[in-house]
Amino acid sequence: MPDFAPLPEPPYYAVIFASQASDDSKGYQEMAALMAELAAKQDGYIGVDSCRDADGFGITVSYWQDEAAIAAWRMDITHQVAQRQGKARWYRHYTLRVARVERGYDGPEGR
Amino acid sequence: MPDFAPLPEPPYYAVIFASQASDDSKGYQEMAALMAELAAKQDGYIGVDSCRDADGFGITVSYWQDEAAIAAWRMDITHQVAQRQGKARWYRHYTLRVARVERGYDGPEGR
Repeated sequence: MPDFAPLPEPPYYAVIFASQASDDSKGYQEMAALMAELAAKQDGYIGVDSCRDADGFGITVSYWQDEAAIAAWRMDITHQVAQRQGKARWYRHYTLRVARVERGYDGPEGR
Repeated sequence: MPDFAPLPEPPYYAVIFASQASDDSKGYQEMAALMAELAAKQDGYIGVDSCRDADGFGITVSYWQDEAAIAAWRMDITHQVAQRQGKARWYRHYTLRVARVERGYDGPEGR
């Protein structure tokens, strides 16, 4: 079982990224691993949940303490290189939303 | 490529459900399909993005116009049966968060 992103006391922020992979995946895995490593070192980073299915559709939700942390990560120079590669090659289509988490819980109880 | 959930003008709400499937998947696919069909008929439903990877980790994000729509779907009697089955059998662990979407966009431009 993967580590689920933690559930701190709200409010905090979620970046919800849904994407359809293109046929060109060269270098993608390495860059995704590097981005996960760098994001985790950012101030205000809380955690991430991520999955991609057999058809290449994926959802990554990263959690951040505040909007300033999201803005700083967006402007990170290495992350900007990754964003450009993603737009040019790796993603056929994507949506990105920023949302304020208002409540959260986990389950099932006792397991 | 799947249909991505639409991007209406914010604010609206996201229910972010991350889950690790258990080894017992009997009846799960049928129930998931039924829940997707029923949710789409609810007042205030906007759309859903969903994926599950080869290790059984999945993320489903459903979008709703307001908190009242989320509450009504949560209390739907057929949905409650599904929730109980999910807790008892289908999910080893899950997290659920409700978040207010503040902005969103899609890309890459021109594709």
